[in-house]
Amino acid sequence: MTDAAALAARVREGELRLHELDDHADPDVAAAARRHLVESETDASLDAVGNYGFPAAAAEPNVENMIGAVQVPLGVAGPVAVDGGAADGEAFLPLATTEGALLASVNRGCSVLNAAGGATARIIKSGMTRAPVFRVADVVEAEALVEWVRDNVDRLRAAAAETTNHGELLDVTPYVVGNSVYLRFRYDTKDAMGMNMATIATEAACDVVEAETEASLVALSGNLCTDKKPAAINAVEGRGRSVTADVTVPREVVEDRLHTTPEAIAELNTRKNLIGSAKAGSLGFNAHVANVVAAMFLATGQDEAQVVEGANAITTAEVRRAEASAGSDGDLYVSVSLSSLEVGTVGGGTKLPTQAEALDVLGIRGGGDPPGSNADAFAEYIAAGALAGELSLLSALASQHLSSAHAELGR
Amino acid sequence: MTDAAALAARVREGELRLHELDDHADPDVAAAARRHLVESETDASLDAVGNYGFPAAAAEPNVENMIGAVQVPLGVAGPVAVDGGAADGEAFLPLATTEGALLASVNRGCSVLNAAGGATARIIKSGMTRAPVFRVADVVEAEALVEWVRDNVDRLRAAAAETTNHGELLDVTPYVVGNSVYLRFRYDTKDAMGMNMATIATEAACDVVEAETEASLVALSGNLCTDKKPAAINAVEGRGRSVTADVTVPREVVEDRLHTTPEAIAELNTRKNLIGSAKAGSLGFNAHVANVVAAMFLATGQDEAQVVEGANAITTAEVRRAEASAGSDGDLYVSVSLSSLEVGTVGGGTKLPTQAEALDVLGIRGGGDPPGSNADAFAEYIAAGALAGELSLLSALASQHLSSAHAELGR
Amino acid sequence: MTDAAALAARVREGELRLHELDDHADPDVAAAARRHLVESETDASLDAVGNYGFPAAAAEPNVENMIGAVQVPLGVAGPVAVDGGAADGEAFLPLATTEGALLASVNRGCSVLNAAGGATARIIKSGMTRAPVFRVADVVEAEALVEWVRDNVDRLRAAAAETTNHGELLDVTPYVVGNSVYLRFRYDTKDAMGMNMATIATEAACDVVEAETEASLVALSGNLCTDKKPAAINAVEGRGRSVTADVTVPREVVEDRLHTTPEAIAELNTRKNLIGSAKAGSLGFNAHVANVVAAMFLATGQDEAQVVEGANAITTAEVRRAEASAGSDGDLYVSVSLSSLEVGTVGGGTKLPTQAEALDVLGIRGGGDPPGSNADAFAEYIAAGALAGELSLLSALASQHLSSAHAELGR
Amino acid sequence: MTDAAALAARVREGELRLHELDDHADPDVAAAARRHLVESETDASLDAVGNYGFPAAAAEPNVENMIGAVQVPLGVAGPVAVDGGAADGEAFLPLATTEGALLASVNRGCSVLNAAGGATARIIKSGMTRAPVFRVADVVEAEALVEWVRDNVDRLRAAAAETTNHGELLDVTPYVVGNSVYLRFRYDTKDAMGMNMATIATEAACDVVEAETEASLVALSGNLCTDKKPAAINAVEGRGRSVTADVTVPREVVEDRLHTTPEAIAELNTRKNLIGSAKAGSLGFNAHVANVVAAMFLATGQDEAQVVEGANAITTAEVRRAEASAGSDGDLYVSVSLSSLEVGTVGGGTKLPTQAEALDVLGIRGGGDPPGSNADAFAEYIAAGALAGELSLLSALASQHLSSAHAELGR
Repeated sequence: MTDAAALAARVREGELRLHELDDHADPDVAAAARRHLVESETDASLDAVGNYGFPAAAAEPNVENMIGAVQVPLGVAGPVAVDGGAADGEAFLPLATTEGALLASVNRGCSVLNAAGGATARIIKSGMTRAPVFRVADVVEAEALVEWVRDNVDRLRAAAAETTNHGELLDVTPYVVGNSVYLRFRYDTKDAMGMNMATIATEAACDVVEAETEASLVALSGNLCTDKKPAAINAVEGRGRSVTADVTVPREVVEDRLHTTPEAIAELNTRKNLIGSAKAGSLGFNAHVANVVAAMFLATGQDEAQVVEGANAITTAEVRRAEASAGSDGDLYVSVSLSSLEVGTVGGGTKLPTQAEALDVLGIRGGGDPPGSNADAFAEYIAAGALAGELSLLSALASQHLSSAHAELGR
Repeated sequence: MTDAAALAARVREGELRLHELDDHADPDVAAAARRHLVESETDASLDAVGNYGFPAAAAEPNVENMIGAVQVPLGVAGPVAVDGGAADGEAFLPLATTEGALLASVNRGCSVLNAAGGATARIIKSGMTRAPVFRVADVVEAEALVEWVRDNVDRLRAAAAETTNHGELLDVTPYVVGNSVYLRFRYDTKDAMGMNMATIATEAACDVVEAETEASLVALSGNLCTDKKPAAINAVEGRGRSVTADVTVPREVVEDRLHTTPEAIAELNTRKNLIGSAKAGSLGFNAHVANVVAAMFLATGQDEAQVVEGANAITTAEVRRAEASAGSDGDLYVSVSLSSLEVGTVGGGTKLPTQAEALDVLGIRGGGDPPGSNADAFAEYIAAGALAGELSLLSALASQHLSSAHAELGR
Repeated sequence: MTDAAALAARVREGELRLHELDDHADPDVAAAARRHLVESETDASLDAVGNYGFPAAAAEPNVENMIGAVQVPLGVAGPVAVDGGAADGEAFLPLATTEGALLASVNRGCSVLNAAGGATARIIKSGMTRAPVFRVADVVEAEALVEWVRDNVDRLRAAAAETTNHGELLDVTPYVVGNSVYLRFRYDTKDAMGMNMATIATEAACDVVEAETEASLVALSGNLCTDKKPAAINAVEGRGRSVTADVTVPREVVEDRLHTTPEAIAELNTRKNLIGSAKAGSLGFNAHVANVVAAMFLATGQDEAQVVEGANAITTAEVRRAEASAGSDGDLYVSVSLSSLEVGTVGGGTKLPTQAEALDVLGIRGGGDPPGSNADAFAEYIAAGALAGELSLLSALASQHLSSAHAELGR
Repeated sequence: MTDAAALAARVREGELRLHELDDHADPDVAAAARRHLVESETDASLDAVGNYGFPAAAAEPNVENMIGAVQVPLGVAGPVAVDGGAADGEAFLPLATTEGALLASVNRGCSVLNAAGGATARIIKSGMTRAPVFRVADVVEAEALVEWVRDNVDRLRAAAAETTNHGELLDVTPYVVGNSVYLRFRYDTKDAMGMNMATIATEAACDVVEAETEASLVALSGNLCTDKKPAAINAVEGRGRSVTADVTVPREVVEDRLHTTPEAIAELNTRKNLIGSAKAGSLGFNAHVANVVAAMFLATGQDEAQVVEGANAITTAEVRRAEASAGSDGDLYVSVSLSSLEVGTVGGGTKLPTQAEALDVLGIRGGGDPPGSNADAFAEYIAAGALAGELSLLSALASQHLSSAHAELGR
C-alpha cells in the first residue's frame, strides 16, 4: 500500500478530511491520495489528471484539494505586428482552447492585419476597482458619508498605501441607494491584475471610514466593483484596462484575402454587432471577442471568470473614403474597444510553468519597466488578437453570404 | 538537426507557413517544430508547454497551430449531495483554477450543503439557440417574413432535422428592426452543448427561408442568439440550460459552521447581490457564480468563452420562518438561478484525456440515458457548486462584518 | 361665503378631509373648495387652474382630489401620408408639448416623408402583459408550478375570459428565480391599452393558480410585466404594440430639403444612435422618439408614465444602393422600430373633451372595426411621427456638421 | 367669413403653409385658422381644444403650429411634510393625470408619511449633461484627444462660460469607441433643467475642440448624454438631480393604516422590485415611480419625455430592528432613490399659466435663493411624492395578498 493509498484510506474512514491531507503529506502525495480516494468512490480513473508537469507545491497559491492538472491544447497565432502604447513590434499570440477553428481564424486575421501594416492599439483608461457597501441609518447619514469621503480622499489614499508597495488609490466614487452607500475605489495596480491588492487596500480604507463616520461596513464587495458579473458600470466606466485596437485594411486585401468587400463587412457589422446586439439588450457589441480573451487568459494564467468583463467590447467597421470622393473605392476601417480587460503579468496563475512560458512568448512576463508597461502591452496584444478574430469571423460570415448570393445568381 | 528543427527552419525561410506544418509532419512533430520556431523568435523556452500528456492528434478537433498544452491545477470539492431532476446522489466537483481559495470556499459550501441535507436542483428550461439575421426590402417584407415563418415552422423543422440525428428544432422566434429580421431558432441538443449542431441546422433552415421568401441572409449569427456576449435576452429567456439550485440551511448550521446568522446573510445578499447589482446596471445578481462556472467548465472541456453567459445568475437569500411565528428562529433559504448555462458531455473538449476524466468524476461522460440526461445532471451539479460557492462567500463576508462588529463592541 | 369657501373652512378645521369633499358637494364645487384651501395655505392663486373646460364629473374616472386642469399647448404636424396595416392615408398628427421646436421638427419630417411618397408602418407583434409573482416552497415546487401552467393554459384562459368581453389571453410565460415564480400573461386587448383589463383578468387566473397549486400570490405585478420601468424584457419581447415605420427618401430630397446627404445621416446614425447608445448601456437606440411619443400620448389621453416603454426604440439609417452599382448615388433608407408602444383609443383619458378631439383628428376615436384596428392605426401614426422626428433631428445635426465642415474648408 | 376661415382657405388652396400662418395673423387667429383647416379635412370638431385659457402668444416658446390646448385633470395630494436639504415643511403636491386612483394612492401615502413624522429627502449629486460625438482618424488620435481634453478642461470651461450667466461646467468625461470619441460635459444649471443651456455651452466648447485638435464634430449629442432614452449611464452616474427620499414608518402605522406588516412589504419589495426587475433586465427597481414623476412633471411644465430618465429609480424596504433584539417588532424603513431626475423651475413650460400656478402651490416658482435651491427643493418634493406612491402601492399589493391569505386560512 502506497502512502497515498494509506492516506486515502484514512479519509475514507473519516479520520482525515480531504483538505487536511496537505498537513500529513507533501503536496504531490496528498494529490495522489485524493486521486485514490476519488477513484475509489467513482468510476473515474485519474491517470491523465495525475500526469502533471510541475511540483504540486508550485500550485499552492492557486488551488486547494489539488488532484492534478487539466491539460488544454495550446496554439499560436501570428506573428502579428502591433503598434501599441506599450506593445511594440511583432508577437506570436498564445491561445489555449478546445474550440476547433478558433486558432485558424485568429491566425488568418493576424495575417490580414500584417498585410494592412499591423494593428494599432492604445490603453485609454486604467484602474482596478473594489466597491464595498456600507449601511447607514438613513439618507441624511448617506449624504454625510458622501461628503466625508469627498473631503477625505487623501486619508483613504494614505490608509490604502500602507498595505501595498505597488498599488495607488486613484479615486473613490460614491453611490447612494437609500441607506446603502457604495464606494467605488479605483487603483493603479501596475502589472498586477490587482483584485487582491485592491481588496486589501480597500479593507484598510474601510477601517478608516468605519472609525470616522457612522457607517457600518456590510461587505467588502457591494457588486458595484463589478467583478465577474456582466455590468453596465464596467462597460461604461471601464475596469482594469480600457483598450482599443484598430486597423485600416486596404480594399484589395479585403477582396483578395478575405473574399468579400469593405461594404459587405460594414453592413454585416451594423446589422449583427450593432443592431442585433441592441435588440438583444446586450453589453457586448461584437462577434466573438470573448473567444480570444478566454483563450489568451487561459494560456497565460489569468482569471478565467473575468472573461465575463472581457466580453464588454464594441466592434465597429466602416468604409473609409478619400476626402475628395464619395465613390466605391474605400478601404475598410475596423476597431474593437474592450472596456474592461483585467490582466496581469505578475501574480495569479502567471508563475505556473506553462503559463509563464506563454507570457514569455509575448515577452511580457513579470513586472514591466516602467511598472505597468507589461500589463499594458499584454492588454494591447489581446486587443490586437480580438481585432484579428473579429476581422476573420466577420469576413467569413460576409463571404459565406456572398457565395450564397453568387450561387443564387448562377441559378 | 531534428525533424522539428528542420521544419522550423523551412518556416523561418518562408518555404512553409505555420499552419501548413501539419501537412508535412505528424501532429506532434509539427507542434515541436512550432515550438522551435517560436523559441527562436522570442526569448521563451517552451519545455513545459511541450510536455503534454496526450497525442497531438487527439487535439486536432480542438486546436490548430498547436505547440503543446497549458496545465491548470485541478482540485475537487465535496462530495456534495444533490437531489436533481437528473443528478442524483453525492458527487465530487472537479474545478480547475488558478485562483487560490476558490476550491476551499466551494468545499466549505459543499460541507454546509451536506449538513443541510444536500442541495436540490432542477432544470426549468432548456434549448440552444442560433439567430441569423436577414435583410429585407422594408417593413412590408419584414411583416411578410414573420408571417411566413409562423406558418412554416414545420418546414424549417424538417430542414433542420436533415442535418442532425440528435438535435430537434423546438421553436423559432422572429424579431424585427427596420429592414433587418432576426430569427431565433431554439433546439433541443440533448447531451451536446449544441452550438455547432444548431449552426448547421440553422444554415439548412436559412436555405429554405431564402428560397421561399424575398429575404437575404446577412449572417448566420445576428447576435440575438446570443453567444459569448452579455445579453439580456439570455438572462430573461435563457440559453442552454436554465437551472436553479436551492437549500434551506438550519439556523444552527449557519451559526456553528458559518459563524454568522441567517439575518446577516439575507441582509448582505439584498444590499450586495440585489441592490448593488441593480445600481451597477448588471445582468448578474450574484457574488461569484462565474468562478464556479469557469472552473468546472475548464475542468470538463466546456467552452470557456461561454462563462460569459454562465454569469447571468441571480442569488436569493431569505430567513424562512415557521408559519406560526414571526420570531427570530428562522432558517436560511438560499437559491441560485443560472439562466443560461451552456454545457455538454459530448463534443467540444470533452474527449481530451484530463477533461474526460473530470467528467467521469461526475459520472456523466458521453451521451446520457435518456439522451440529454447527462448534460442535465451536469448543469445541476454546476448549479449546486455555484450554490456552495455563494453560500460560502456570502457567509465569509457576513462573518467578517460580524467580527469587525464584535471587535468594535469589545473596545 | 361661497359653498366652496365654507367647505374649505371645514377641511381647515379638521372636520373633513380633502378627499371627502366629493361626498359633500358636486365635483366642481369640491374642486373649487380644494382650490380655496390650497390658496389659503400657500401663496398660489389658482385662477388659471380653475378655468377648465369640462364638467369635473367627466374627470371622475381619471383623477381624485381634483382642483382643476393643466392646459398644455397643442399643435399639429403634417398632414403625413401613412401606408399602414391599419392606418391609411393622410393624417394630421396632434402633439401636446411645452418643448419649443418639437412641432416644427416633426412637421418638417412629415413634409420630407410626403416628398418620399409617405411613410410605411406595420404592427409586428401585439399584446398587453401582466406578470404576477408567486412564492413557492422551493425549486421543486417551482418546477411543478411551471409544468402545471404549461398544462393548464386553457383553464387560465377561461378564468381570464370570464372577466372581460374584449380581452383574450394569448399566452403565459413562466420565469423562475429561486422560490419566486413569475407568470407573464399576455393579452389581446383590442382597442384598449389594456392594463386594467389585463390586471383584472390576471387576478382571476391567479385565483385558479392558488386554488390548484401550492403557490401563493405575493403581488399581482412582479415587475416582469414590465409597466412604467425601463426593462429589457419589453425591448426584446415587446409590450403593447411592436411597430415599425420606414421610408426611402430619394437622394435629391435629402440634399434639397434636408441640406445634407444620405451618407452623412447614415454615419451620424451609426455613431450616435447605435454606437453611442451601445456605449451608454442603453435600451433606446434613437435620437428623440420619446418626444413624439410623449407629445402624442399627452394630446390623446394616453398614460404619460408609459412614455418610458415608448422610448424602447431603434432607429436605423442606411444608404440604399442600386443592385448594379456600388456608387455614391444611393437613396436614404430610415426606419424606427418601437418595441413597446402601449396605446388605446378607448378608456383611460381618451374620453376627456380635448383628448377625444385629438383622437378625432386622427380619425381613430373609440373602438375600431374590426376591434383593435383603431389602436393599431394609432400605433402606426405614432411610429410615422417618430420617424418624422428622427429624420428631422438627424438631418439637422448632420447639416450642422456639414455647415461647420464647410466653414472649415472655407478658412 | 372670419379671418381664420379665410386663412384656412388660403392654406387649403396651397397659397400658405400651415406654419406660415403666424406670419399672417396674430397667434390666436392663426390657431383658429389651423383648427378650421383641420376640422375641414377631418371629422373632428375642435371646440374644446380651442377653448384654452391663455393668449396663444404666451405659448410661442413652447409650441409651433398651435391649434389650442389639451386640458388634463389636476389634483393635489397631501400636504406632506418633507425634511429636505432645500425643501422644508409641508407641501401640497400637484399631480396632473388621467389615471384614476393615482391621486388617491399618493394621497394615502402622504398621510402615512405624515404619521411617520414626514419624509426626509436629499440631493446626492447634481448636473445636467450633454455628450457630443467626434470622429477622429484612429485610436492614436482618440488617445490624443482624450489627453488634450484632460489638459484643457479650463479652456473648455471658459468657452462654455461665455454662453451663459447661470450655468457652470463641472467636468468633462471622455469615452472612446474606435474612432468615435464622446465627451460627456456636465453642468451646474441652477434652477433650470438646463438641457438648452448645456447644449449651447457645449457647442461653444466643441468649437474649441475642433479648432485645437484633429477631431471633427459629428453630432452635438452622441447619445451618451443620455437624453430621453433609458440608459445605464444615467442610472449609474446620474443626470439632473440624483435624489433619495426615505422614511421609517412605525409598525403600528403600517398595521393600522396600511393593513399589512413591515415583513410583508419588505418581502414584496424584494420579490417584485428587486428580484422581479433583476429578471426583467430592468434599470427601474421600483413599483410605479414614473407615475408620480409623469404627473408632477405634467402639472409643472417639465419635459414629459424626460419621464424616461425619471423612471431610473430603486425602491428599498426593510424591517428595522432594535439593536438588542432580532424579534418581530421592527418598524418599516422604505426609501426611493431616483438617479436621474431632470427638473427646472425656470424655462421650459414653467411660465404657462396653469403650470406656474402648480409651481406656486409648491412655493418654488422661478429662480431660487440661493440659485438652484428651488429646483433642488422641487426634486425633493417629487422624491417624497414617489415615496408616498411606492409605500401606498406596495402596501395595497401586500394587504391584498394578506386578505387572500386570510381567506385561505378561513376555509
